[in-house]
Amino acid sequence: MALRLGVLEKVATVFKRHGAQTIDTPIFELKEVLTGKYGEDAKLIYDLKDQGGEILALRYDLTVPFARYLAMGKVSSIKRYHIAKVYRRDNPAMTKGRYREFYQCDFDIAGQYDPMLPDAECLRVISEALTSLDLGPYKIKLNHRSLLDGIFAACGVPHEKFRAICSAVDKLDKSPWDEVRKEMIEEKQLDGDIADKIGSYVSRQGGNELIHELRKDEILMKQPAAVSGLEAMELLLKYCDIYKITDKVVFDLSLARGLDYYTGIIYEAILTGDGVGVGSVAGGGRYDNLVGMFDSKNKAVPCVGVSLGVERIFSVIEAKLATKGEKVRTTEVEVYVASAQKNLHEERMRIISDLWEAGLKAEQSYKKSPKLLAQLQHCEENSIPLVVILGERELMNGEVTLRVVKTREESQVRRENLEKEIRKLLGY
Amino acid sequence: MALRLGVLEKVATVFKRHGAQTIDTPIFELKEVLTGKYGEDAKLIYDLKDQGGEILALRYDLTVPFARYLAMGKVSSIKRYHIAKVYRRDNPAMTKGRYREFYQCDFDIAGQYDPMLPDAECLRVISEALTSLDLGPYKIKLNHRSLLDGIFAACGVPHEKFRAICSAVDKLDKSPWDEVRKEMIEEKQLDGDIADKIGSYVSRQGGNELIHELRKDEILMKQPAAVSGLEAMELLLKYCDIYKITDKVVFDLSLARGLDYYTGIIYEAILTGDGVGVGSVAGGGRYDNLVGMFDSKNKAVPCVGVSLGVERIFSVIEAKLATKGEKVRTTEVEVYVASAQKNLHEERMRIISDLWEAGLKAEQSYKKSPKLLAQLQHCEENSIPLVVILGERELMNGEVTLRVVKTREESQVRRENLEKEIRKLLGY
Repeated sequence: MALRLGVLEKVATVFKRHGAQTIDTPIFELKEVLTGKYGEDAKLIYDLKDQGGEILALRYDLTVPFARYLAMGKVSSIKRYHIAKVYRRDNPAMTKGRYREFYQCDFDIAGQYDPMLPDAECLRVISEALTSLDLGPYKIKLNHRSLLDGIFAACGVPHEKFRAICSAVDKLDKSPWDEVRKEMIEEKQLDGDIADKIGSYVSRQGGNELIHELRKDEILMKQPAAVSGLEAMELLLKYCDIYKITDKVVFDLSLARGLDYYTGIIYEAILTGDGVGVGSVAGGGRYDNLVGMFDSKNKAVPCVGVSLGVERIFSVIEAKLATKGEKVRTTEVEVYVASAQKNLHEERMRIISDLWEAGLKAEQSYKKSPKLLAQLQHCEENSIPLVVILGERELMNGEVTLRVVKTREESQVRRENLEKEIRKLLGY
Repeated sequence: MALRLGVLEKVATVFKRHGAQTIDTPIFELKEVLTGKYGEDAKLIYDLKDQGGEILALRYDLTVPFARYLAMGKVSSIKRYHIAKVYRRDNPAMTKGRYREFYQCDFDIAGQYDPMLPDAECLRVISEALTSLDLGPYKIKLNHRSLLDGIFAACGVPHEKFRAICSAVDKLDKSPWDEVRKEMIEEKQLDGDIADKIGSYVSRQGGNELIHELRKDEILMKQPAAVSGLEAMELLLKYCDIYKITDKVVFDLSLARGLDYYTGIIYEAILTGDGVGVGSVAGGGRYDNLVGMFDSKNKAVPCVGVSLGVERIFSVIEAKLATKGEKVRTTEVEVYVASAQKNLHEERMRIISDLWEAGLKAEQSYKKSPKLLAQLQHCEENSIPLVVILGERELMNGEVTLRVVKTREESQVRRENLEKEIRKLLGY
């Protein structure tokens, strides 16, 4: 938890730096709110027992509850972050950071704004978060749903198969093209020729030069969706340049994202360093129609957002610490109050009470007469920097011993100067 | 959420000051773990649907999961805090801060220690938390389960009725004695004489003088449970004196606490200021046998802890702010980047990018050409202290305008000095 809270705090700091407020939604939603939002994955939703009253399920992500909240509250613009747990009846895989209960860290911008301004900020937020977490090199893959639709149309995919082919393309980050091609042909009854045409597109990635190449593709440019998608990508890449993240992003035609609700730009961040094979650590995109699904008049609120997969990040950081042999402190104790003789517990209590009063983080043994060695050992094991040692004779002289645990240096301190001396040694 | 997070952070600060580490447990527990722990209230437990696999329920409090965690992990000593949500199918009452999903803030000390040392620290923790939250005057009522048992025995209550009579006494904070007496006699088939004897005890409260009085009660002193309970109380009051909270605590024989699992000292904090009628805001006690219920060999781990009812605290603080007409800021934005003419959005992006890079909390409009008045209004409404205003002419001279929102004072600042000037105005 100490490690996790450290990560979550860094993420929240980035979200707050971008002016987001935080909201909370209940852990449960009406079952009907979640129905029809997650495609095949709906089978992973945890349902509550019908005990009378509403039929409830545990939230599956933070995006659908956010959209429901906007529609119910008639909120037409907000920049919010939400760090909370979601629930999926999936097969857990501890080493990959896949759990049934796990944190998501979401940042979303809702509102009717000018093209790509909020979208570019989401990419900047991903970049700041991953940089601040010091996870090593990473790339943010970008693509656009309209462009994908334009490519599918140009290749001759029937319109009703767009989403199915899209979710086949989505598997390219885990499976080789041959397998994805097979799925398109065998499972999704696509013509082999059409699949091959798709293959020639989705293998391409790059930057502005890829946009120029695609602009020369006459068949593709006959698709209005492709034209508008490319225009959006071009503007986004320009904004990425202004936001100084050009070296972090890559325009990747194989990126498709599984969820149905994306309507514009989509993105996914992966770590590219050695031995961090954990797949995507952040993802998101634009979803302009989701809020409308919860509004009685179908009123849309355009949204774009990012979700950080912190469980994967936790496991990367844990592995890193394990390699270095480093331990995370689980408490923040600054000073321990110890006694060198028996029955000094009341004196210890008087002193620790003063330390708490002064706002210092302090603890002591709950035994009346603990052994000095055991007390000092506790301090070393828990990396407590300072220890106050009480002895009868010193107490009679109005003094205590202040010991620096690491160096074992000791000094006699007047009791009335104790807090001041402790602060000095702690450096504040 | 801004208000809530502020409260939770203050509470966590107190818990950490006392050297507690934090742990997390899943939101769901095996149904069998919760069974038989909450008496009549078990009907309020939220069950998950049986979708195959384990039979689960949502946690009802943080104490039972903590005890289960200690037993499963063979942890024999720990000082931990846990701030998380629990779930009860209760009738919500918004104004009283009673919800079906609500936060609890728990601090517990587990381990075999000397009498009353951890217990006194829990009282000190309550006191520090309530003081730091600035909720006005409060009292911490204290009692001891052994003493209550001794009193019941001395009055002639049959042993098998102890817990039932105890839960009747527990209602004295909400109901007058007459009603409680009626419940004892009519529902719990107690003799009227016995009930009256109990009444003469449970109406008493005080400090050390009450201990001396009870010591003179010969019938009571024939009960070993009463003798040991009084001894414990006396030691606790002495420790409270050392911890400088004597003026906050009151020994109150009417305090009984509803839960069955308490075995020693029990306590409850109430606000005593005007117009804050929200009942108890913190409570807890010693429960030495709960962990053993989850251990195959019945191995006990003595525990004592406190739970803060922060939802009630939230509603008290909300009411206080409403009275004063004060608003809580929902974001922490330090500086807004505005433009005075059209199409300066790329310049704004360049500047805000530098501000983020410098760690400043900054936001801007997502419109290419927002109106200046609308931008300034946003700053005033959201109490953003500073605004950088871009104008074409100033930009050509390498300058921007820096405006203090409250005073409307403006100054021209060289772009290269912008971050420095902002920090100066923010006071760091």
